[in-house]
Amino acid sequence: MKIEFWFDFASTYSYPCAMRIESLAEKSNLEVVWRPFLLGPIFNKQGWNDSPFNIYKVKGEYMWKDLQRICNDIDLPLKRPDKFPQNGLLAARIAVTFANEPWIPSFIKSVFSANFEHNENITSPSVISDCLTLVGENPEDIMKEANSDIAKELLRQQTDEALTRGIFGSPSFLVDEELFWGDDRLERAIKWANDNRSH
Amino acid sequence: MKIEFWFDFASTYSYPCAMRIESLAEKSNLEVVWRPFLLGPIFNKQGWNDSPFNIYKVKGEYMWKDLQRICNDIDLPLKRPDKFPQNGLLAARIAVTFANEPWIPSFIKSVFSANFEHNENITSPSVISDCLTLVGENPEDIMKEANSDIAKELLRQQTDEALTRGIFGSPSFLVDEELFWGDDRLERAIKWANDNRSH
Repeated sequence: MKIEFWFDFASTYSYPCAMRIESLAEKSNLEVVWRPFLLGPIFNKQGWNDSPFNIYKVKGEYMWKDLQRICNDIDLPLKRPDKFPQNGLLAARIAVTFANEPWIPSFIKSVFSANFEHNENITSPSVISDCLTLVGENPEDIMKEANSDIAKELLRQQTDEALTRGIFGSPSFLVDEELFWGDDRLERAIKWANDNRSH
Repeated sequence: MKIEFWFDFASTYSYPCAMRIESLAEKSNLEVVWRPFLLGPIFNKQGWNDSPFNIYKVKGEYMWKDLQRICNDIDLPLKRPDKFPQNGLLAARIAVTFANEPWIPSFIKSVFSANFEHNENITSPSVISDCLTLVGENPEDIMKEANSDIAKELLRQQTDEALTRGIFGSPSFLVDEELFWGDDRLERAIKWANDNRSH
């Protein structure tokens, strides 16, 4: 059985989630399907042209504190990035285009680390190249393909699918068509998959 | 040691929270301080003149589903009210004015049940009177005092205090000045109190 993990690379709560979903899913014999998308177009439909954590500052300050407590719990390093949110477009295009490659989960995690552990600018092609190198891949061809029209279209389609299936935030989980939103709902999503296991 | 439970009677996630906070706190030898306030003025400052669950409809539909799952887990009846959010002004004035009375926690829970279990209109004085009768109180004097200038001022002050202390949603918990937001952070707030116990 599968759990779809929908995320935007800029999303703060998606960082601890990306780091812990595999081990949790494995314990329940669930396959993780990594599904990057862009929150920007979805937020735009809600009337936001920035992260709600920037628009609603009090909520944003609380979020960073809450995130720190969550990361502390699982011994995950966190450094508040100088710039938030960072545009994850390039990384997302790579992740959709090469979705079936075995190095994709490691690549995704290395991009999250670049953003939230090392305070690097993931909009920069050189940072993303480093992430690819780190997971043993040759950046040149991958970067070229990530800028192709096919990659752009794939990411547009994936974001459209997120909208169609009722996703409004990151991280979200879909088990069949049952939707769960938030890192704090990961355990619940996995439990739901276990309780409704048919395949 | 104390855990302050800040809530608005209209808040959906505050309903399961109100029903479960006492038993959880008791296990950790924590005293629950029930602190009703009004979200309306706080939401207004964020530019909202309605519940964000109504303004952002997709998020709102998800919330009702998520809330149902949470209530199912703890065998708590839930009936989606015909009107949401309901104005909890009268109930909140009673709860601040008589904050130190031993019947207050039961009264608060009966108002939440009226709203979210029985689909009753908690704006109505007769519904609130019934809640008072249910917990063994004589409504007449209490209702009169709840409409006094003192009651109004007490609730205004409490809402101002919520703002000052960084509260932006309901339910929220304060343990000393450490803030936690959301029913799903109740266990974390209690753990924090246990880990930082000084009095």
